[in-house]
Amino acid sequence: MEQRPIRLGVVGLGRAFTLMLPTFLGDERIELVAACDPRDEARAQFACEFKVPVYPSVVELVQDAAVEAVYIASPHQFHAEQTRVAAAHGKHVLVEKPMALTLAECDAMIADCQAAGVHLIVGHCHSFDTPYLQARRIIDTGDVGRVRMIHALNFTDFLYRPRRPEELKTEEGGGVVFSQAAHQVDVVRLMAGSRATHVRAVLGSWDPARPTEGAYSALLWFDDGVYASLTYSGYAHFDSDEWCNWTGEMGNAKGDDYGLARRRLSKVQSAAEEARLKSAGTYGGPSYQPPKHERLASDRQHQHFGPVIVSCERGDIRPMPDAVWVYGDESRQRHPLKPPGVPRFEVIDELHAALLSGQRPIHNGEWARSTLEVCLALLQSAREQRDVSLEHQVSLRQ
Amino acid sequence: MEQRPIRLGVVGLGRAFTLMLPTFLGDERIELVAACDPRDEARAQFACEFKVPVYPSVVELVQDAAVEAVYIASPHQFHAEQTRVAAAHGKHVLVEKPMALTLAECDAMIADCQAAGVHLIVGHCHSFDTPYLQARRIIDTGDVGRVRMIHALNFTDFLYRPRRPEELKTEEGGGVVFSQAAHQVDVVRLMAGSRATHVRAVLGSWDPARPTEGAYSALLWFDDGVYASLTYSGYAHFDSDEWCNWTGEMGNAKGDDYGLARRRLSKVQSAAEEARLKSAGTYGGPSYQPPKHERLASDRQHQHFGPVIVSCERGDIRPMPDAVWVYGDESRQRHPLKPPGVPRFEVIDELHAALLSGQRPIHNGEWARSTLEVCLALLQSAREQRDVSLEHQVSLRQ
Repeated sequence: MEQRPIRLGVVGLGRAFTLMLPTFLGDERIELVAACDPRDEARAQFACEFKVPVYPSVVELVQDAAVEAVYIASPHQFHAEQTRVAAAHGKHVLVEKPMALTLAECDAMIADCQAAGVHLIVGHCHSFDTPYLQARRIIDTGDVGRVRMIHALNFTDFLYRPRRPEELKTEEGGGVVFSQAAHQVDVVRLMAGSRATHVRAVLGSWDPARPTEGAYSALLWFDDGVYASLTYSGYAHFDSDEWCNWTGEMGNAKGDDYGLARRRLSKVQSAAEEARLKSAGTYGGPSYQPPKHERLASDRQHQHFGPVIVSCERGDIRPMPDAVWVYGDESRQRHPLKPPGVPRFEVIDELHAALLSGQRPIHNGEWARSTLEVCLALLQSAREQRDVSLEHQVSLRQ
Repeated sequence: MEQRPIRLGVVGLGRAFTLMLPTFLGDERIELVAACDPRDEARAQFACEFKVPVYPSVVELVQDAAVEAVYIASPHQFHAEQTRVAAAHGKHVLVEKPMALTLAECDAMIADCQAAGVHLIVGHCHSFDTPYLQARRIIDTGDVGRVRMIHALNFTDFLYRPRRPEELKTEEGGGVVFSQAAHQVDVVRLMAGSRATHVRAVLGSWDPARPTEGAYSALLWFDDGVYASLTYSGYAHFDSDEWCNWTGEMGNAKGDDYGLARRRLSKVQSAAEEARLKSAGTYGGPSYQPPKHERLASDRQHQHFGPVIVSCERGDIRPMPDAVWVYGDESRQRHPLKPPGVPRFEVIDELHAALLSGQRPIHNGEWARSTLEVCLALLQSAREQRDVSLEHQVSLRQ
């Protein structure tokens, strides 16, 4: 495989970008060649840090001949239009999850990229995390038989982190289904491997000060009688990272900062102040902290999205931040994982393999659309109090 | 409260009885005064150990004037008829879970006991366990607000313990719904407190050598929008007791005996041999081991039925074998539990309070019928692939 770096232009220098920045900085297969953002201070910081052109809008960025692929990390509602613009200019697209807010948008994005002959990859999503990919490889060996049941749970303080107002409105793509089920459903689909068929779900919405759904439980069926149970709480006080070696979602060792998110938020007086707080901490903002390479690298485990148990015919598989456990009929084995030198390098693996070797990415448009369909069906099932069939699902083999 | 012991006659000296025997031996509020069992060797051992009358059938036992209450621990299918016979002779009834196999049987049991003016208590069930009762008391203080969501899971090797053939036939009361959901649903109902309204469930049945359902996942709704997610696997290789301090269901510290149940079972050649193996280890059998009082008492924690997280408006509650954790908005508190001097003393608490002070037991016939209705609905929901409404539910307050 050719080893030159991919010349990436960044669309949106918000929170998603700051979470990917350590990857872009640490992975030699990426060269940041341009960025766009409506905020002056974010553009100024990017220009200063990388000595490359910056633009106020995507329309200008995609005319930059140095850019061969864009990373779209804007708010969800802009993904479809920005993908269209990028594809029309022959740029490959890496777009953040959720891919979009409607299936029609997904269809357009897939069609636009196909027509332009560019790759479309959706991520980062936690189904890129090595523990899940490695669990999938172990399943594929057939040693423990077919997957029969999957159980996934995650208890976090998601709803109490600083939010923009639209992040607390489901109809605008807020709430835990669009933001968090997007991860959990994707991980579960990766573990199942086969096509999902229908879903039954229930939403929890019990804090009037954060008026969106902050929790859910769902049953998700797949071909061949495989089923999954998913539970998420973004209202949680109990932290399920306890069941993942006290390793946080980002692979970080968790310290003793019980209740920190709620404590910080309790000092905020208004939604505007909260949005400013979020904005201040993002790239270019006055309280933005650049990634700490040294500290991160030394005690970092793999990223994850909460405990997952995959029950197979002859064994259970348990992806963990530092290993995949395989519990067989006769013995249990710990398959240790090499610590990640660079976080989220798995995204660059797929992007690089697609662009330089033409390899089909797992996390392509069709795959991500399937996950969005499950998320939308999850909302519909809770609203209509019934099973909802899934019509546009692909399997891992597509 | 009067403190004299209750004069108890035992109906059925099988596995359920051997699990209750440490309680009967250790709790001074119980005096074993008679027993019946069809097996000669079980009767002989009981007569030898307790120097009291033994009978081949319940019809003879209930004519013994020394017996004031019976503990019915026979196979599920005999519960209703034996309750009828006992009540007709004025004996109070403590009957093992599941209460019966049909709601009609439950109705008859409740009516028979009511007509005779005797108490009916269903147990032991793990909802008697102190961690759950204490969690309920904490919820009742209102300090963490109302219950909103409950998550319960349990991964065990249930299906690979020695079984009689009917224990592997759902239509005869076998499988994990009748035996294990009976615990988990009861615990979840205790945590919710309110009336369950409907259920959606899916069953897992993936070992042709054990032809019953060995796993399930379910969503259970309650009044006021409260919901629960329940998952159980009796096929498990992963052991969720890891998330309960490595304390087993019986409050025992778990040793390193990975795969023991499957290893033992792999040496069994036939269903008949398996039934003999089970029988040999029960009371009066050649390999029966009496309870080890000393060892048990020293390192025993409370019994439990797997991890349970109760999400409330202002905090999460987590019953554990040695404490109840209360995770609040500002701090988390560990409420330590006094180790149980006698296992399952909570059953005797309710029985004693009912018989000697006329106190209404939590685990009465109406309560247990509600749990059976949920279990039956769980089977029906999986079969008919739809939500099933619940019509006969009582709340904790009844």
